[in-house]
Amino acid sequence: MQPRFHEPKGAAVKVPVVRDILSANERLAEQNRRLLAEHHVCAVNIMASPGAGKTSLILRTIDALAGRLRVGVIEGDIASRVDADKVAAAGAPVVQINTGGTCHLDAPMVGVALERLPLGQIDLLFIENVGNLICPVEFGLGEAARVVVSSVPEGDDKPYKYPGIFAAVDAIVLNKVDLAPYVPFDRTAFRTLVAGMNPKAPFFELSCATGEGVAAWVAWLEALAARVRGGA
Amino acid sequence: MQPRFHEPKGAAVKVPVVRDILSANERLAEQNRRLLAEHHVCAVNIMASPGAGKTSLILRTIDALAGRLRVGVIEGDIASRVDADKVAAAGAPVVQINTGGTCHLDAPMVGVALERLPLGQIDLLFIENVGNLICPVEFGLGEAARVVVSSVPEGDDKPYKYPGIFAAVDAIVLNKVDLAPYVPFDRTAFRTLVAGMNPKAPFFELSCATGEGVAAWVAWLEALAARVRGGA
Repeated sequence: MQPRFHEPKGAAVKVPVVRDILSANERLAEQNRRLLAEHHVCAVNIMASPGAGKTSLILRTIDALAGRLRVGVIEGDIASRVDADKVAAAGAPVVQINTGGTCHLDAPMVGVALERLPLGQIDLLFIENVGNLICPVEFGLGEAARVVVSSVPEGDDKPYKYPGIFAAVDAIVLNKVDLAPYVPFDRTAFRTLVAGMNPKAPFFELSCATGEGVAAWVAWLEALAARVRGGA
Repeated sequence: MQPRFHEPKGAAVKVPVVRDILSANERLAEQNRRLLAEHHVCAVNIMASPGAGKTSLILRTIDALAGRLRVGVIEGDIASRVDADKVAAAGAPVVQINTGGTCHLDAPMVGVALERLPLGQIDLLFIENVGNLICPVEFGLGEAARVVVSSVPEGDDKPYKYPGIFAAVDAIVLNKVDLAPYVPFDRTAFRTLVAGMNPKAPFFELSCATGEGVAAWVAWLEALAARVRGGA
């Protein structure tokens, strides 16, 4: 789109080439969706700013689901494999995608990663997107649900500034509530704001550092996986 | 680029259309640079994750430079004008750019914003980019210097995961050092890492909440502005 200035407000103009890319992506996302359905895998796309705690949330959840659901992970990063190494150390099958500079995962990247995972041995697949509150939301990956993780130190104004992602997701997680005593953050205002922007999305306030609030998130994931894997 | 997987490593392939966009951007960045030079304005492009403290750093700096340098601001956001309103309340001339979904500022957007600012009354111009550690670094805006702001709660692994921006900038700020007692963050490791990735960039550890460390950052900015405005 063209940039908009507050005075005067210009028209938003769609750029055709972007539509074509997105349309090709959606076709490949549908292929991923079918492949995941064949293997009864529930895939969850985890999106957040850098450092909001995506990997920490995945590690906490793997731990909480031990013996209940078999978890696999696709790690998306610009560079490095530090997150994939952490997940592998937790015993989960993991594939690292390095996007080589691209600011989001797309369906073709995830399609290649799916070929490298033992899908028959995975019930719940986390797809950890590149740390970015903007671009990832435009690219469906074939997932059953999309989740945004925000965190207390980022400030309570993030939904105002990145409304697209907060409005689009199927669940909203507020991480690092243990840091609330040390930073200005109005939890009630944040909760009210996201409820207004996305009334259907469940909202989980938790701390991956202390474990507070993680159980409700895990219960939601288990119910989601049961629904998706049951074909409902 | 194409995505890379760790096993096997694929070739990185450049996409021509991206080159064309970047080349057009660079031509317009050069126009901005000339306009800024004519008015003796030193422009600094501030980049960071969402919530790292870009606006807080700008507000602290406006306060510290009162009576010494006249500061103007261009605020870049996907949506909202909350940051621009904060800057306006601090008494600085400000233009808000809403990118309408685009994940970075580019030179054409900044060119339009420059037309709306009283450049003859500005010595130091902050251009606050969209909260994103990836895409903004590809788009020159005509600035004299580029700065990345990282923050303690994001974790000390960010330079590993977003190496492009840390290697490209002219200065690196680590904000929210007041939160160091409450989160795992190895400041020595971070300092060593960024010094290895970008040995020429000065590194400032500070807290916009307490003011600790802000003076060294402000002194660097003043020296930069003196150099740029003197035409050296």
